[in-house]
Amino acid sequence: MTAVIGIDFGTESARAVVVDTADGRVLGSGVSVYRHAVIDERLPSTGATLGAEWALQHPGDWLEAIDASVRAAMASAGSSSADIVGIGIDFTACTVLPVTADGTPLMQQAALAGQPHAWPKLWKHHASQPQATRVTDVAAARGETWLPRYGGRISSEWMLPKALQILEEAPAVFAEADLIVEGGDWVVWQLTGAFARNACAAGYKGLWHKGDGYPSDAYLQALHPGLAGFYTGKGGGQAVVAPGGRVGTLTPAWAARLGLAPTTAVGAALIDAHAGVLGSGATTPGALMLILGTSTCHLLLAEREHLVPGIAGVVEDGIVAGLFAYEAGQAAVGDSFAWFVDALASADVQAEAARRQVSVHDVLTERASALRPGESGLVALDWWNGNRSTLVDAELSGLLVGATLATRPEHIYRALVESTAFGTRVIADALRDGGVPVTRIVAGGGLTRNRMLMQIYADVLGLDLEVAGASQASALGAAMLGAVAAGRAAGGHATIEDAAAAMAPAPTERYHCDPAAHARYDTLYRLYGELYETFGRRSTLMHQLRALR
Amino acid sequence: MTAVIGIDFGTESARAVVVDTADGRVLGSGVSVYRHAVIDERLPSTGATLGAEWALQHPGDWLEAIDASVRAAMASAGSSSADIVGIGIDFTACTVLPVTADGTPLMQQAALAGQPHAWPKLWKHHASQPQATRVTDVAAARGETWLPRYGGRISSEWMLPKALQILEEAPAVFAEADLIVEGGDWVVWQLTGAFARNACAAGYKGLWHKGDGYPSDAYLQALHPGLAGFYTGKGGGQAVVAPGGRVGTLTPAWAARLGLAPTTAVGAALIDAHAGVLGSGATTPGALMLILGTSTCHLLLAEREHLVPGIAGVVEDGIVAGLFAYEAGQAAVGDSFAWFVDALASADVQAEAARRQVSVHDVLTERASALRPGESGLVALDWWNGNRSTLVDAELSGLLVGATLATRPEHIYRALVESTAFGTRVIADALRDGGVPVTRIVAGGGLTRNRMLMQIYADVLGLDLEVAGASQASALGAAMLGAVAAGRAAGGHATIEDAAAAMAPAPTERYHCDPAAHARYDTLYRLYGELYETFGRRSTLMHQLRALR
Repeated sequence: MTAVIGIDFGTESARAVVVDTADGRVLGSGVSVYRHAVIDERLPSTGATLGAEWALQHPGDWLEAIDASVRAAMASAGSSSADIVGIGIDFTACTVLPVTADGTPLMQQAALAGQPHAWPKLWKHHASQPQATRVTDVAAARGETWLPRYGGRISSEWMLPKALQILEEAPAVFAEADLIVEGGDWVVWQLTGAFARNACAAGYKGLWHKGDGYPSDAYLQALHPGLAGFYTGKGGGQAVVAPGGRVGTLTPAWAARLGLAPTTAVGAALIDAHAGVLGSGATTPGALMLILGTSTCHLLLAEREHLVPGIAGVVEDGIVAGLFAYEAGQAAVGDSFAWFVDALASADVQAEAARRQVSVHDVLTERASALRPGESGLVALDWWNGNRSTLVDAELSGLLVGATLATRPEHIYRALVESTAFGTRVIADALRDGGVPVTRIVAGGGLTRNRMLMQIYADVLGLDLEVAGASQASALGAAMLGAVAAGRAAGGHATIEDAAAAMAPAPTERYHCDPAAHARYDTLYRLYGELYETFGRRSTLMHQLRALR
Repeated sequence: MTAVIGIDFGTESARAVVVDTADGRVLGSGVSVYRHAVIDERLPSTGATLGAEWALQHPGDWLEAIDASVRAAMASAGSSSADIVGIGIDFTACTVLPVTADGTPLMQQAALAGQPHAWPKLWKHHASQPQATRVTDVAAARGETWLPRYGGRISSEWMLPKALQILEEAPAVFAEADLIVEGGDWVVWQLTGAFARNACAAGYKGLWHKGDGYPSDAYLQALHPGLAGFYTGKGGGQAVVAPGGRVGTLTPAWAARLGLAPTTAVGAALIDAHAGVLGSGATTPGALMLILGTSTCHLLLAEREHLVPGIAGVVEDGIVAGLFAYEAGQAAVGDSFAWFVDALASADVQAEAARRQVSVHDVLTERASALRPGESGLVALDWWNGNRSTLVDAELSGLLVGATLATRPEHIYRALVESTAFGTRVIADALRDGGVPVTRIVAGGGLTRNRMLMQIYADVLGLDLEVAGASQASALGAAMLGAVAAGRAAGGHATIEDAAAAMAPAPTERYHCDPAAHARYDTLYRLYGELYETFGRRSTLMHQLRALR
C-alpha cells in the first residue's frame, strides 16, 4: 500500500493524516495544539503588551506540531515509513512572517525578539486596517486593473497591508527582512530547504495573477516609496507553484526527525479552506463548495475568468492547476446563531435544553423545523459581522423585520438560518450573472450536522445539496497535494483531479430541493433582496448608526 | 366638606373614589371586580361558544359594581351621604349594547338571552372587522368629509361596525332594539332615568360632529339599506351632552341603594382614557397627555380644529367643553417590552433578576440606563402590534436594525424603549405640522415608574416631562365630571377647567430634557424617520411578509 501525509495547519492546532493514495482511506491521524496558541495579549519573549486587533503566532509551534502530529498519525496508522511517498500541507492565510534569506524568522534574532513586528502575523491580525484602506484607496484612485478581481476592496488580513504596517511602524524590521513569506510556504521551506510561493495564497492574499504578475512598481511607489521593488524582492520574486506542484523532497534532517525517506515529495501549500475543496471532491467546474462554520467560505471552480462584482477573489491555479477558483464569503453564519443563543435564548428554551440534556441549538432547531417557510413572518439580513460578499462592507449590521407580539425565539432562529441561506443565494446568483456556472452545491464544515439548515439551503438555493464525505476535508486535501507531488510513478497521482477522483469519499448525504418550499422561498428571497439593496447600496443608515456608537 | 364620587369602569373591574371638591383629596376608594369578567369563550346564559375575536360583558356586572365600589369607597371615606353632591363616571369605549326604549338590555329578554348579539359588545370585540372595512371603504368611495377626521380608517371597535354586525348577523336582534347605546351612557341612564349620549364617545367612537352631526342617511343606505334612519333612531337622535354636563339626578331607587341624596347630580360619561386627562390636570391647550401602558394613548386639547393626517380623531367637546380634543395612539408600548422579556430575556438576565429578587424589566432597565443615546448602535420601529398613528396600519410589524455579534439584551431593550419615544415624537411632530401646538408633555400610566423611560422620552421629545400626580387619574377625572354636574352653587365647580385647577394634584416629578442627549437623539430620530417612511409608506414589504404567514 502506498500512502501520503496531509498536514492541516489551523489557528489553534495542526492535524496530520496518513492516507491511502489508492482510495483515500484515512489510516491514521494525530493532532498537536500550538504551545503558544494565538498570541494576542502579550509577547512571550518580553511580555510586551500587544495593541488592539493584534494576533501573532510562534513559528516554533508549527515545527513542533509537524513533529508531534505526524508521529502520532504514523503511530495510529501503524504504517512503515517506506509506504509514505508524499507530504502536502494546508495553512491558514494570510499568515505572514519576515525572515532572512536563509529562512530564519526575524523574531529568532535576539535583537528583534521583543519587537512584535518581527513575529508572524496571524491571518486574523486586523491592526493593519489603516494600511489596507490606503492599499485600496490608492489602487482605486489609479484605476489599478487588479482591484476589481478582489471585489474592489483589499482586506487588512492580506499580505500587502501587513507588510506596509511593518514598514511604517517598524522600518528597521522591514529593512532587516530579506523576505516576507506566507506561513505555509515557510513550513514547506523548512521541510525541503527550497522556497517557493504557492499560487493559492499568492493569488488570493498576495495580489498575484498568473498572467499579469504582481501590482506594478509605480503603484507601490504611489502607496509608499519604501515599497519600491517589493515584488521583485521581499514580497515576490520567486517561482509561484500551482497546486499539486512539487517544491522538493524532505531534507535529511527532517526525514530523520519524522522517520521518513529523504525521497518523500513535498507539495506546494494551499490555504486551509481551499484544501477542503479537494478533500470534499468539489473539483469539477460548477461545483460550489460551502464551508459552513462560524463564517462561510464559498469556493467554486470554473474554466474561464470573469470579473464578478462583489466576489472577493478569482485566482487561476488557485485550487486546481488550469482552472479558475472563485472565492466569496459570509462573515457571520454559525457566529450569528451562537450570538442568538448566547444573548437571547430565553429561560424556557434554556430550561428545556438542560432538562433534555441537549444543546440550546438543538431545542431551537427542533422547534424551528416545525415551521413552514414564511410562517415566522420574519426576514433578516445576515450582516451581524458585516457583509463580505457581495458588498465587501464590514460596517453593515444585522436587521430583523416582521416581528410581532407573537414572535417566538424559534421564529428568529429560523429567520437567522434562512438569512444566511439567502446570503449564499445572492453569491450564487452573482456568480451566474457574472457568467460563472453554478450547477452543484457541496457542503462541508460543522454546520452540516444541522439537518434543518441543510434542507433550508437546498430549498433556498433550488439545487440538491451534497454533504461532503470527508470528516477532515482540509487534511485529506493536503494529502492529495502530497500524492500529486509524488506523481503517478511513485504510487501517487498525475493530477489533482485524478487524486480527488480516487481519494475523495462520496457524499454522506444528499438533501433534495423541495419545489413547494423553493417557491415560497423565492418570494421571501425577493423581500431579502429588497432589504439587501436598500441597506447595502441605497441607504447609509447602517453606517450612520455605527458612527453614533 | 363637599365631596363627589367618580366611578371608573375598566375592562375587568370598576373603581369608585370619594373626592373632596375643594382640593381633589381622595377620601376613600373601593374596587369591584366584574363577576363575569370578559366574556370571550362561552355565553354565561347557555354556554354557547363565541366566535374568534368576540368579547362581551354582562350589564348586570356594571350595576353590581356601582353598588359595591361606591359602598366600599364611602365606607373607607367615612363621609356621610349628605356630603356627596355629584357623581361622574368614565367607561371603556366603544362598549355598546342593544336595549329597548326603557333601557332594558335585550339579553335580559328570555327569548334573546342565548343570542350573543343581544349582549353588550366590549370595546375589544374585533369580530366586526369585515363590517369596519366596509364602513371605511364606502365612506372613502363616497368621499365622506368625516372620514379624514378619523385618519381615514374606521376601527372595528367603534359603534357603526358593531351595529352593522348585529344587523347582518342577527337581524332580529337589530329589529328588536330600540336603541344601541354606549355602556357609559347606559349606566348614567340607570342612575338617573334619563338617557343622553356623551359627546366624548359619540365623537370618538360614534362618528358624531358638533357642527355637522352624524353621517348622512345617503351614506348609511349605501352601506346597508337596513341602516336607513339609524342616526335619527337607534344610533343617535338624542341630545349629545358635553363633558361636565348634568344628565340628571339619582333616581329614588339608586339614591336609596347607595345611601345618597336623590338630589345628587350625575354627569355625562367620558371615555376612561379621556377622563385620565382631567385627573392629570392636562386640561390646557397644548398639553400633550401620554397615557403609557401596554399601549399608549395620546390626548391633546387645542383651540382650533385641524385635519391632521394620521391623527385618529379630533372631537369638539371631546374632553373639555369648547375645546377640540385630538387623539392618537401607539399600539404596542409596554406590550413590546413585555414581549421582549417573555420571548428573549436570556438565562443570565433571568438569573440575575431571580437572585436579586427584582423583575427582569428592572435588570434590563438598570443595564440599559448605563448606555449613552446611540451607544447600542440599534434603532427599531415600534410596530410590534402595527402602527396606529400616524399610519393607521395594523399589518405593519416590528423592525430592528444595527445588530452585531456584540449586541446584548439591554441594547435591544433600550432600543425598544427609544423606538416608542420616537413614535410619540412622530405624533407630536404631525400635530405641530398640522397646526396644533404641543407645548407641554404630561405622562400618566404604569410606565411612568420607569425612570429611564421617562428620561428618554424627555430627551427624545425635547421638552420637559411632567409625571401626573394622580394615582387613579381616570376615577379622579370622573369625580370632576360629578363636581361640574353638581355646579358651583352646590359646592362643585362651574367648569371642567375650574374643577381640574382645584382638584388635579401637582406633578409628582418633572424630567428635564438633556440638550446633549437631545442632540444625539435628533440624529437617531432622523434614521428612525427614514425607516418609518421606507417601511410605512414606500415599501409593501411588511404586508408581503404578513401575507406569507
